[in-house]
Amino acid sequence: MIKPLSLLNQSINSNVLVELKSGRGYRGILDGFDPHMNVVLKNAEELLNGETQKKMELAIVRGDNVIYISP
Amino acid sequence: MIKPLSLLNQSINSNVLVELKSGRGYRGILDGFDPHMNVVLKNAEELLNGETQKKMELAIVRGDNVIYISP
Amino acid sequence: MIKPLSLLNQSINSNVLVELKSGRGYRGILDGFDPHMNVVLKNAEELLNGETQKKMELAIVRGDNVIYISP
Amino acid sequence: MIKPLSLLNQSINSNVLVELKSGRGYRGILDGFDPHMNVVLKNAEELLNGETQKKMELAIVRGDNVIYISP
Amino acid sequence: MIKPLSLLNQSINSNVLVELKSGRGYRGILDGFDPHMNVVLKNAEELLNGETQKKMELAIVRGDNVIYISP
Amino acid sequence: MIKPLSLLNQSINSNVLVELKSGRGYRGILDGFDPHMNVVLKNAEELLNGETQKKMELAIVRGDNVIYISP
Amino acid sequence: MIKPLSLLNQSINSNVLVELKSGRGYRGILDGFDPHMNVVLKNAEELLNGETQKKMELAIVRGDNVIYISP
Repeated sequence: MIKPLSLLNQSINSNVLVELKSGRGYRGILDGFDPHMNVVLKNAEELLNGETQKKMELAIVRGDNVIYISP
Repeated sequence: MIKPLSLLNQSINSNVLVELKSGRGYRGILDGFDPHMNVVLKNAEELLNGETQKKMELAIVRGDNVIYISP
Repeated sequence: MIKPLSLLNQSINSNVLVELKSGRGYRGILDGFDPHMNVVLKNAEELLNGETQKKMELAIVRGDNVIYISP
Repeated sequence: MIKPLSLLNQSINSNVLVELKSGRGYRGILDGFDPHMNVVLKNAEELLNGETQKKMELAIVRGDNVIYISP
Repeated sequence: MIKPLSLLNQSINSNVLVELKSGRGYRGILDGFDPHMNVVLKNAEELLNGETQKKMELAIVRGDNVIYISP
Repeated sequence: MIKPLSLLNQSINSNVLVELKSGRGYRGILDGFDPHMNVVLKNAEELLNGETQKKMELAIVRGDNVIYISP
Repeated sequence: MIKPLSLLNQSINSNVLVELKSGRGYRGILDGFDPHMNVVLKNAEELLNGETQKKMELAIVRGDNVIYISP
């Protein structure tokens, strides 16, 4: 058994996919998070329907938009 | 009588279906949860209209999207 | 006078109807609840427009979707 | 001056109309409430466009759906 | 300078307009409120597009629907 | 560096524009606020697509509707 | 590893892009923030589909609208 935030903690410095309610997703290296599931992504790509829309060196994605985070 | 979180606790390592507000569902082995009903699923499948959309080794599904979880 | 959670408590082991914001409803035997109105239903049926969509041995329905619960 | 919850308290055992965000309303005898404005209605009728849709002996209506309660 | 709740307090027994997110408004004499901006209106009128839809002797309007309250 | 609420505090008695999620905006003299970003506006104008819809001597705008406040 | 609010703190006096749920974005110099991710932007531009809609010397953008903030 592993708690959601512990799994996020184990995923630091790994690639994660953050899928949002709006249909957009963000893929990047997890650089940090807080208990609200706000996450910091490094080398982030914004994805829409599987295609890269935009690249960002760093992005703070707000947790309340998240459907799931897949490490 | 059983409290919702106690039932989640009993369902650890079992297969569960997590149905979301968006119409999407996730099926997988429950690997963890927290009091917000954020859940960790192992060997997760994303379902839409009963069909598998995608497979993920691990996913943290955020609790505020959940309609129901069925163990 | 009876408080909402006390009425839920009296309804344990009885049949209840849980009507959700999405138009879906769930009918089953109330097996548990918590202060957020998350409920555990046994022998649950999902209803849409009065017709059974699906049966589940157990389901945890998240309270924030609920319009009303009728014991 | 009267606080909202004090008015609810004075309305116990009286007929109230509970109007919801969805356009539906519930009329019944107020049998209880809590600080979230969750209410227990006895002999409740569900109303849509002024017409009775359904009758229920008891219903717990969740407060976060409420637009107004009129005693 | 005046805090929002202090202005509500000064407006007790005065006529106020409560405009809601749904496009509906309520006009009446402010009879009470609480820190969530739930308000009690006396001799309340429901307004839609400037026209009176309905009159109510008393109504508790839930604060989370409010866009603005104008004393 | 300045915290959001400190900037609101510095803007007391100045003209501000309060833009809401609904597309409506309110312009007026900031007369007060609280930590939820509920604001009191004096000599407020309601704006829609840049045009004045309505004038109000005083209005309490609820913070949860706000997109931004520009002093 | 860096927590979301620490990254915001490091971004004070730098240019940031604040993308909102509504599809609008704001670009400006980060002048402050609070734990809700409410942010103060200096020399802010409102963007829609990549085009500048409006310029503001100062704007407090409410955190609950935010999808992501990119430093």
